Amino acid sequence: MRPDHIAASKYICYTKKMKKLIAVTMGDAAGVGPELCLRLLAHKPLHRLATPLIIGDGGLLARVAKLLHIPFNAPCFTKEPESLPKPAVFDPAEALAGIEIKPGIDQPACGRAAAQYIKVAARGCLAGRFAAMVTAPISKNALNLGGTHFPGHTEMLARLAGVRDYAMLMYSERIACAFVTSHQSMQSVPRSLTPRRVAGVAALAWRNIGALRGKTPRLCLLGLNPHAGEAGLFGSEERSILAPALRILARRGIRLDGPLPPDTAFTPAALRRYDCYIAMYHDQGCIPFKMLSFDCGVNVTLGLPFIRTSPDHGTAFDIAWHGRVSPGSFFAAFKLAARLASVA
Amino acid sequence: MRPDHIAASKYICYTKKMKKLIAVTMGDAAGVGPELCLRLLAHKPLHRLATPLIIGDGGLLARVAKLLHIPFNAPCFTKEPESLPKPAVFDPAEALAGIEIKPGIDQPACGRAAAQYIKVAARGCLAGRFAAMVTAPISKNALNLGGTHFPGHTEMLARLAGVRDYAMLMYSERIACAFVTSHQSMQSVPRSLTPRRVAGVAALAWRNIGALRGKTPRLCLLGLNPHAGEAGLFGSEERSILAPALRILARRGIRLDGPLPPDTAFTPAALRRYDCYIAMYHDQGCIPFKMLSFDCGVNVTLGLPFIRTSPDHGTAFDIAWHGRVSPGSFFAAFKLAARLASVA
Repeated sequence: MRPDHIAASKYICYTKKMKKLIAVTMGDAAGVGPELCLRLLAHKPLHRLATPLIIGDGGLLARVAKLLHIPFNAPCFTKEPESLPKPAVFDPAEALAGIEIKPGIDQPACGRAAAQYIKVAARGCLAGRFAAMVTAPISKNALNLGGTHFPGHTEMLARLAGVRDYAMLMYSERIACAFVTSHQSMQSVPRSLTPRRVAGVAALAWRNIGALRGKTPRLCLLGLNPHAGEAGLFGSEERSILAPALRILARRGIRLDGPLPPDTAFTPAALRRYDCYIAMYHDQGCIPFKMLSFDCGVNVTLGLPFIRTSPDHGTAFDIAWHGRVSPGSFFAAFKLAARLASVA
Repeated sequence: MRPDHIAASKYICYTKKMKKLIAVTMGDAAGVGPELCLRLLAHKPLHRLATPLIIGDGGLLARVAKLLHIPFNAPCFTKEPESLPKPAVFDPAEALAGIEIKPGIDQPACGRAAAQYIKVAARGCLAGRFAAMVTAPISKNALNLGGTHFPGHTEMLARLAGVRDYAMLMYSERIACAFVTSHQSMQSVPRSLTPRRVAGVAALAWRNIGALRGKTPRLCLLGLNPHAGEAGLFGSEERSILAPALRILARRGIRLDGPLPPDTAFTPAALRRYDCYIAMYHDQGCIPFKMLSFDCGVNVTLGLPFIRTSPDHGTAFDIAWHGRVSPGSFFAAFKLAARLASVA
């Protein structure tokens, strides 16, 4: 039971020799990303877990820091530093230099820069220079305006890493959910489920949650239909898709409970029992997750050859550069990245 | 803003003259229904709210009472009593007399008797002799074996009352959800949604929750798709069905918030804001409901010309006649029926 990035063991040897370095992408400059990065640089207890290297714009960070009265004295590099004893900023191409950025609106320059930060962080992870990456929120619209056409981080990172089997995991200390489907219409969910996909997501969750917990995890496979189909009365996917998925997993030595009726799977007693849920669709997992972990949830991409975490909120354009963003979820994402890197 | 049963005003005049009498059907004799009825008869504080008349089998109740050491001294009638100053049992046709009933298994006699109890209670409600009815759980299989072919109470009562527009409401002090669809496959949900149906359920919830709360209620219409469709990216039902439903409601003077992204609609702040949610499918409402109100939830059928409540659990055959059932949800159903009858 080892997380996926173990497969790339050459990187691990490398990160074990040095103090863990975590790449933190600044995200969309017009969103809450710059403030979150500044708060991370200012919060010293977190630096004991790993050294953050912000991949972003030094000038813009200085501007936001001044506006919000956040201390900011980390060194800024325009070439990637060879070794890094303390937190710093790395501005790979000075993509925002000389451009007047306004907070709270989609701008092509912000999208272009955000895409570049992600590429630099992913390549550094793939090359083993970074132990993990944490991503501040991006705007899909700005990304498009800037010429990068992906629905979000996850799909872009999967392409950069050349993987096709990946899944979203929402993680907090109280609840964890891995998703078989996510950002798609409810109508399209049933036909997106296959035994292979369900088994693939469950296996990813099993390995990663097992590594985090340091023990064989107890996983719950949720039914798609109410009452898990009630013996076929309310839908057949539990028999035609989930039962074969459980057989595939059993052959690989992975045992899950389920398929369980979704509505009784999140009662307090059930929550204590399960280390992770395998959800069939977005809201099946996200409703209970956000009820229990609204400000401390972390999004983890499973299936990449490196560790990637992010907060579970978006750019929050309405409060960008206001000094009002809660850094709870972002700090939790950094902590979890450091923890995942340490169990690697 | 008055609950639906107000329409049948002749009954209301009648119930106002007498002490409120609530018919309580015993449900499936082989399930937890008999124990629940005995606990209700033994719990005197509840009788101050209304007088329960158990529609069930006196002999079987005496047998279970002896087995579980529950005091049982209520009078048993085989003809409906004309007036009733204190709790009693009414056994309309002695359907179980002379039959050896075993706990925990589906038996035709139990299904036949359960159907009869429901008919007697519903007719008494329609005739204005009962202020409300509370139903203990039935087994769909036993009902079928006994020759009554309905998926459950709700459909049977709707037929008996001759109504076609009805909806399930799950109610507790912490959260209330009305359902546009319920016991059907997820695959069939999108095509079951129509503007008329959504508006109908929202209007039923508006009237009934308004009567319960004694004020204009604040309702939340949930989206069907993740992020409420994210402007059409993840599904179109928010635009093609929910927006027209909101326009129908606005013309009737009913205003709702929404459609809201389902995953952020149940955070603690949102829960404080809303008196009731309009859920598009079973688990969208039942997951958060059962997380918050596992042992105190009440099921209310909206749209009937009388009041009907029930606990939110089933026959629990595995613990039938064991003395281990928690009566919380059943007591809450009786209390809510009494409260609904008092605001009528």
